Amino acid sequence: MFVSQLETPALIVDLDVLERNQTRAMDLLRPLGVALRPHYKSHKCTAIAHMQLTGGAKGITCAKLSEAEDLIQSGVEDVLIANQVVEPAKLMRLGYLAGCCRLSVCVDTLENIRALESAAATFGTTIHCLVEYEVGMRRCGVATPQEALALAEAILAAPHLSFLGIQAYAGQLSHAEDFARRSREAARIEGRLRELLTFLHENGVDVPEVSGASTGTVELRGADTVYTEVQAGTYLFMDAAYDRVGVGFEHSLFLLSTVVSADAEHVVCDAGLKTLGVDQGNPVFADFPAASVNMSEEHCVAYCANRCAAGDKLRLIPGHCCTTVNLFDAIYFVRDDRVVDRVPVTSRGKSR
Amino acid sequence: MFVSQLETPALIVDLDVLERNQTRAMDLLRPLGVALRPHYKSHKCTAIAHMQLTGGAKGITCAKLSEAEDLIQSGVEDVLIANQVVEPAKLMRLGYLAGCCRLSVCVDTLENIRALESAAATFGTTIHCLVEYEVGMRRCGVATPQEALALAEAILAAPHLSFLGIQAYAGQLSHAEDFARRSREAARIEGRLRELLTFLHENGVDVPEVSGASTGTVELRGADTVYTEVQAGTYLFMDAAYDRVGVGFEHSLFLLSTVVSADAEHVVCDAGLKTLGVDQGNPVFADFPAASVNMSEEHCVAYCANRCAAGDKLRLIPGHCCTTVNLFDAIYFVRDDRVVDRVPVTSRGKSR
Repeated sequence: MFVSQLETPALIVDLDVLERNQTRAMDLLRPLGVALRPHYKSHKCTAIAHMQLTGGAKGITCAKLSEAEDLIQSGVEDVLIANQVVEPAKLMRLGYLAGCCRLSVCVDTLENIRALESAAATFGTTIHCLVEYEVGMRRCGVATPQEALALAEAILAAPHLSFLGIQAYAGQLSHAEDFARRSREAARIEGRLRELLTFLHENGVDVPEVSGASTGTVELRGADTVYTEVQAGTYLFMDAAYDRVGVGFEHSLFLLSTVVSADAEHVVCDAGLKTLGVDQGNPVFADFPAASVNMSEEHCVAYCANRCAAGDKLRLIPGHCCTTVNLFDAIYFVRDDRVVDRVPVTSRGKSR
Repeated sequence: MFVSQLETPALIVDLDVLERNQTRAMDLLRPLGVALRPHYKSHKCTAIAHMQLTGGAKGITCAKLSEAEDLIQSGVEDVLIANQVVEPAKLMRLGYLAGCCRLSVCVDTLENIRALESAAATFGTTIHCLVEYEVGMRRCGVATPQEALALAEAILAAPHLSFLGIQAYAGQLSHAEDFARRSREAARIEGRLRELLTFLHENGVDVPEVSGASTGTVELRGADTVYTEVQAGTYLFMDAAYDRVGVGFEHSLFLLSTVVSADAEHVVCDAGLKTLGVDQGNPVFADFPAASVNMSEEHCVAYCANRCAAGDKLRLIPGHCCTTVNLFDAIYFVRDDRVVDRVPVTSRGKSR
């Protein structure tokens, strides 16, 4: 089947590019001794997670328990939920799942540590815990070394928990378009983390792992980085938002769309807010990258000189790959102009 | 089951409010002799479409062929696809489906009329056609009475097509927050449409239906409106974007979310960009309506004084109901604090 035969809107991934992006990420991290634990949120396809593992990734990061369930079901043996799990029924499921793979989760309160211990004890399992350290997102996590120490000690004292280390994700940096600012801030956060590690060490707590970092900061890591693993996700697909940041990966993800109306000055396509995540900006037409774009629910309009006619097919680069993928049940794998496979977006809509 | 027992994020609809909104819409339109053909895009649930039909709606509007398929499958007998269908395989399905219900579609080119005639002829069916008239969205549609006449005449000459009238949707007005501007523009468009109808009549073409209008303009219709049916969708659920416009319907749709982290000055919930459409603005916390809100993929943070603790459940009013519903597989129907039903979002992700 040719790509041009796909009914639209259709999400397509260029496998040759995806493979180059995976290789490039490993080439950047391997010399530093830093592991890649790619974030599942960017593709939500267990088929792609296994491609990342065979391509050198150490394990998989995900955001939600329901994503972890899909990953474990598919056979992934090392899964990190990079968030807090607090609902009682979810804690029980987490306790059970910890017997099915090496399962890690983030914590930022003593109450949550007690609840995790109780859930793991119920099933006789071990849950690995990262203490989340607040590095500027103003979201979850503790902000002082003293609080982090108290949590680490509570984990170490809990018979069914294992202290894995520190989660430190500075999402506010990922899309900073000024390279100098991004580098400076990343270095400042590394400094804060180094102080934290020293403080914990002086208090008898060794930290096996420091996990975090994103596609936007992966290139900023030096040989002296405190991070032991990187949770980048977008590097594999890329999107228009990361283009503005300039991170050196190539686009492998496109939305294939059909022109439904056109004149010499504008093109209207059959893809809109229900097929393209715009929370980090509008998509870019691959054929008209400079065109101004206007979105509605089921339409995407490019205002530019063109020779399109209704029925033509165009590729769009999504503004944000993660929220775009979450709108689709399946992704088509392509090489050149051929469709080679169709894989389910296993965890589409898995937000629990 | 109590609402507080739902695992989150969960989309809930207050049925008492939904029923009041349906009654209010009918009460506004009935005295004008204008029919309600509610837009399916706002809920994508066939169960709710049938509630609208039993509540007085004339038929259902939808955006895509795949939505029409779901509606017809569920038994809806009068369906309008308020868009152009241009892909060859879709045209064939449209021709077939026109034999399963009274099916209407919008057109804006002679080529498309020829393709529709051919598809309907293949199955021996009749496709009802609305000529789309461009009233300011700069999207699809023809912009002059002469072009509209040419299309109407082509439809009238096609043995398997029926000329239903004019589609005129002024989506650019729906969210204009200035009431005076909204009224003035709506009146100006009614004037343009009146001129169009006169021109068509003078040229021997009578126009049975003028379809269009939205939740944001439904209250602006007077007894002299040219519209014969209104395609409002959001009136049933409402959202934070239409709150700013002030259209007098009540909120029936909420996202139930669990607090995962909190201190005296901020609350972090387990719902984010993958569970809340933000293309028309951020959600509003029902308990903290004035709080500034920050969104990430799986988190929603309210910066405000509060006494929340991890595990508490909060309601959010989505910024845009249509793109929010499209993220969920199911909606819970509630009355007061009880869950009374769970209905599938039948056409979630149906964008083809």
